[in-house]
Amino acid sequence: MKRGSNMPAVGTYNQTLVLDMIRRSPAGLSRTELAERTGLSAQTLGNVARRLAAEGFVVEGHRVVAGPGKPRTPLQLNRTARYAVGIHLDPAVDTFVVVDLSGGVIAHTERPPAEGADAPELIAALARDADALLRSADVPLARVLGIGVAAPGPIDDATGTVLTPPLLPSWHHTRLREQLARATGHPVVLEKDVVAAMVGELWAEADHALDDAALVYYGAGIGLGMAVDGEAVRGRTGNAGDIGHLLVDPGGQECSCGSRGCLGVTVAPERLLFDAGITPSPVIAPTAVWGAIDELRVRIAAREARAVEVRDRAAATFALAIVLLNNLLDAETFVIGGPVWNRLGRELKPALDAALPTVRQSTATRPLVLREARLGTDLAAAGAASLVLDEAFTARASDLMIGLS
Amino acid sequence: MKRGSNMPAVGTYNQTLVLDMIRRSPAGLSRTELAERTGLSAQTLGNVARRLAAEGFVVEGHRVVAGPGKPRTPLQLNRTARYAVGIHLDPAVDTFVVVDLSGGVIAHTERPPAEGADAPELIAALARDADALLRSADVPLARVLGIGVAAPGPIDDATGTVLTPPLLPSWHHTRLREQLARATGHPVVLEKDVVAAMVGELWAEADHALDDAALVYYGAGIGLGMAVDGEAVRGRTGNAGDIGHLLVDPGGQECSCGSRGCLGVTVAPERLLFDAGITPSPVIAPTAVWGAIDELRVRIAAREARAVEVRDRAAATFALAIVLLNNLLDAETFVIGGPVWNRLGRELKPALDAALPTVRQSTATRPLVLREARLGTDLAAAGAASLVLDEAFTARASDLMIGLS
Repeated sequence: MKRGSNMPAVGTYNQTLVLDMIRRSPAGLSRTELAERTGLSAQTLGNVARRLAAEGFVVEGHRVVAGPGKPRTPLQLNRTARYAVGIHLDPAVDTFVVVDLSGGVIAHTERPPAEGADAPELIAALARDADALLRSADVPLARVLGIGVAAPGPIDDATGTVLTPPLLPSWHHTRLREQLARATGHPVVLEKDVVAAMVGELWAEADHALDDAALVYYGAGIGLGMAVDGEAVRGRTGNAGDIGHLLVDPGGQECSCGSRGCLGVTVAPERLLFDAGITPSPVIAPTAVWGAIDELRVRIAAREARAVEVRDRAAATFALAIVLLNNLLDAETFVIGGPVWNRLGRELKPALDAALPTVRQSTATRPLVLREARLGTDLAAAGAASLVLDEAFTARASDLMIGLS
Repeated sequence: MKRGSNMPAVGTYNQTLVLDMIRRSPAGLSRTELAERTGLSAQTLGNVARRLAAEGFVVEGHRVVAGPGKPRTPLQLNRTARYAVGIHLDPAVDTFVVVDLSGGVIAHTERPPAEGADAPELIAALARDADALLRSADVPLARVLGIGVAAPGPIDDATGTVLTPPLLPSWHHTRLREQLARATGHPVVLEKDVVAAMVGELWAEADHALDDAALVYYGAGIGLGMAVDGEAVRGRTGNAGDIGHLLVDPGGQECSCGSRGCLGVTVAPERLLFDAGITPSPVIAPTAVWGAIDELRVRIAAREARAVEVRDRAAATFALAIVLLNNLLDAETFVIGGPVWNRLGRELKPALDAALPTVRQSTATRPLVLREARLGTDLAAAGAASLVLDEAFTARASDLMIGLS
């Protein structure tokens, strides 16, 4: 429900907007440039800049003399003003990052998921590792805004609960948001991995090129992040982005739903590894997948026939799925990333680029652009940290509205 | 790109917001109720209400005495303050409506599409019929805001051009927006039919229940309208919503794309009619479809075995498609409507409601709600008219931003 607007709401919004613009310009922006881009008067802009400087979010850069007229003094982001922690829970690996206010990763660690532990032990382990990483990064704790956690769905958005992600049985029905906040003393945000990844890429993008876009997340499962008008699409319950049962290979592998050729089973890493003759069974432990994928990569590079065939089939499958999703979303720009993509992308990307224009199902009026995620290996973890920054520092039109008292 | 905000922008937004709230409350809202809902101060609210009354958009209702305290005088929408025309171009029928400021249809006419005419003749016929309908409705022309046109995609959003909708060959590459504006003297908006339908349902909804929802449009083609955070999703080029090639029936009918079992061909009305033994060929003229569908309805009602089988297969297909789309969008609420649905919905709805919970592909955490479009037979035409009202009278957060000078 929309609400009215008044001057205090406008003041907060303008301040966030100016900070957002400064953040996206590594070289900084002068007051004149900011006034032009925002449409704000020089006086208002001056007040906003003064407040941002007083709160320590921006610093004055070096004066730049360029052409006639007054030299320009850019305002630059003070990256060390705030920090956030990001945690990515994946069946194969738990990743922890600390990011600064620019969204840049300043500390990273990963470890295998604790197996067979109960929920309180899992939470305690997350809290311990997040704390250790913050200490190692030498971050003043008062500047830590909070912790973002990315997990496979389904989640319960309203209560911050991990529901029943098939490959994370130990986490089922854990009220992660509440428990991790209690264990760490930091505010905690929980999002589905694909939503966190989309928010992370939106945050990392300087020129708003992803304001309407989609993100294919290729990990133990496959999902889609979506952005509309600069905001990630969460859906009613925070579970948007499930494309595992999209039919892509009629007559293909049987899926748990009873159908054959669902996207999830067709490009499941275990399936590719089995089809390529690398693993003896299509069912292997999630933690055994990484090493086997490295072997697949080696065989593709060596042009081993079965491996190349597996790669080409996967590329054609991804191409069909992306085209069908683009027909629906008219997103035009697709980002691709995730744990499996990170290990296999170099081999898959050329085949996928070649396959995309050949898909006869396309109804798009303009060519589709596919690019790899900027956040690379830290996609979901840095995305999770961005959730925290995003909540505090993205200029949202809804911020312009008077809050409910 | 977001812009800054200032008091003039806020003033316009608040006025639109208050009008929007009054419009959605047929009994009207008192100043006290409006102040509560908007969060605006009594003084600001009073000023806004005065301006709306002075401009003729709202009128004072009858004083209501209810309980102790001051009697309440509701502000009500003056439905006759503005009007808009909606035109729906469909392969089988062109529909024209006039709506008042409430979005209610006050005049309606339809006719078969002009066949074999060239673009200037088609435009002239649209202008003539729109004009005749406005005269018959006795609407003061100065109060007509503009004309909205809904057409099958693909369109070119930027130039307001109908590109190449397969079933509307006479319209291909027509710069409809520009030419119809010139022929009528009214501003013209062009949107894809599914987007117009979604905007129409959002406009017609009193309680914002569709702010995150999807709309299955079942006409000569099938498409999906989507709403995120109260706004219809248009995509980068205005062509969002194409689901014709979603695979739903492996081994089914061959599609123009070369695959078998795409959604578009599987539930195409011509296909259903042929499979039910009503028409001798799966290829018939669009204008011959309506009468044959009436026959299918009769046979289903008479429990004719082939007709019932066709209905059940169609319902199962729609159920699968809706579940797959809900997995992606987490929309929870689906609206269904469109020209074919209008004629077949009464027979299809119970079968579809029964099929939905049985789809094993669902990954939703809550039950899906399916309901029929409020706008009924005028879905796309009234939706097209709503585009004009929506542009002028929906309180958008983006209105809060300073315009580009």
